[in-house]
Amino acid sequence: MAASKPIYLALPKGRILQEVLPLLEGAGIVPEADFFSEKNRKLTFATNDPGLTIIRVRSFDVATFVAFGAADMGIAGNDVLQEFDYSEIYAPIDLGIGACRLCLAEPEALKETDDPSRWSHIRIATKYPNTARRHFAAKGIQAECIRLSGAIELAPSLGLAERIVDLVSTGSTLKANGLVEVETLSEVTSRLIVNRAAFKTRPHDVGGWVGRFEEAVRDAA
Amino acid sequence: MAASKPIYLALPKGRILQEVLPLLEGAGIVPEADFFSEKNRKLTFATNDPGLTIIRVRSFDVATFVAFGAADMGIAGNDVLQEFDYSEIYAPIDLGIGACRLCLAEPEALKETDDPSRWSHIRIATKYPNTARRHFAAKGIQAECIRLSGAIELAPSLGLAERIVDLVSTGSTLKANGLVEVETLSEVTSRLIVNRAAFKTRPHDVGGWVGRFEEAVRDAA
Repeated sequence: MAASKPIYLALPKGRILQEVLPLLEGAGIVPEADFFSEKNRKLTFATNDPGLTIIRVRSFDVATFVAFGAADMGIAGNDVLQEFDYSEIYAPIDLGIGACRLCLAEPEALKETDDPSRWSHIRIATKYPNTARRHFAAKGIQAECIRLSGAIELAPSLGLAERIVDLVSTGSTLKANGLVEVETLSEVTSRLIVNRAAFKTRPHDVGGWVGRFEEAVRDAA
Repeated sequence: MAASKPIYLALPKGRILQEVLPLLEGAGIVPEADFFSEKNRKLTFATNDPGLTIIRVRSFDVATFVAFGAADMGIAGNDVLQEFDYSEIYAPIDLGIGACRLCLAEPEALKETDDPSRWSHIRIATKYPNTARRHFAAKGIQAECIRLSGAIELAPSLGLAERIVDLVSTGSTLKANGLVEVETLSEVTSRLIVNRAAFKTRPHDVGGWVGRFEEAVRDAA
């Protein structure tokens, strides 16, 4: 039997990666040593299993790689999944890591007199324009979104947009910028995601990994 | 006379920043010490001139902050300016830094038999979907673009898209991924950009800085 193409697992750079490591261990995945240095520019990494290769990409790109089948599996927050809303992604397991929330926030001074029930149009700076527009449209509010890729919390003080929709974890970034939470759009955790076609055509390989991650999550609980 | 609002200058994080520093010096701008550490999470920085404040944001966001008047001036590559095509931005000075080019590249093996004059539809992974679509549409080619925020060079080998449109500087990243350049979409350098309204309403302040940057570029040549 010819060796089949390895399974590609897309993992996000940055913040979440530290929380992912114990789960990899629990699932029996030992990445090559290079993987543990965020400094090197390598993007693909071998593991102890010749049938599994890791790629390390930005958290927003994990969903895209998996949706198009360039990676078979990945780990992505449901903030990213909501924003792209790819039908090709199946997200079977809540990994219980990367917990935070997607919030609308505004300057403290504005909140004192603000009445969200009277909003008809709001302007928002955000990394999540699709999610924000959809969320507020469902309440009859038109959200004009200015897409930023970072430093969202600067937007209100510089007059880019009065309000922001952004991930909040401890709330210290908001506080440091004189902003307060007004509404939670969604609670966020990271999920194991799978390309639907890969799951159907390689049920043994992909399904096997899903099972092992499931166990790793159970053991970590 | 009341002190007027400071002028905000938006500078890009990362690669370009090192090349920006001599120009700041030439223009007489001395940022506070914190500015020189990319590690701290501060986003706004005082300078030796109480009338000038620096904000440090992602290169793709510099144009957005300036277009909406949240920053009065900024430094942005014309790759970013083309991609957003904001009418509110005036880009008076080519700073002659950050030189690279926006290229279409594809796997070496594909190029051997490929004939770009016969393309009618191509699939491209890129950070620059608007620019790529526009460029190829003008030649009668439909470019289906998959937006990624990084690791573009992985796309062909993983089957996400056969071709990529990305910034190329030395070409070593392409080479390391078995990719070769097919076409240059544009030559890229960084420009001083200015919010048109700020330039009109504060000609003395904003125009003064434009003049000082102009001199700094001349002196650096």
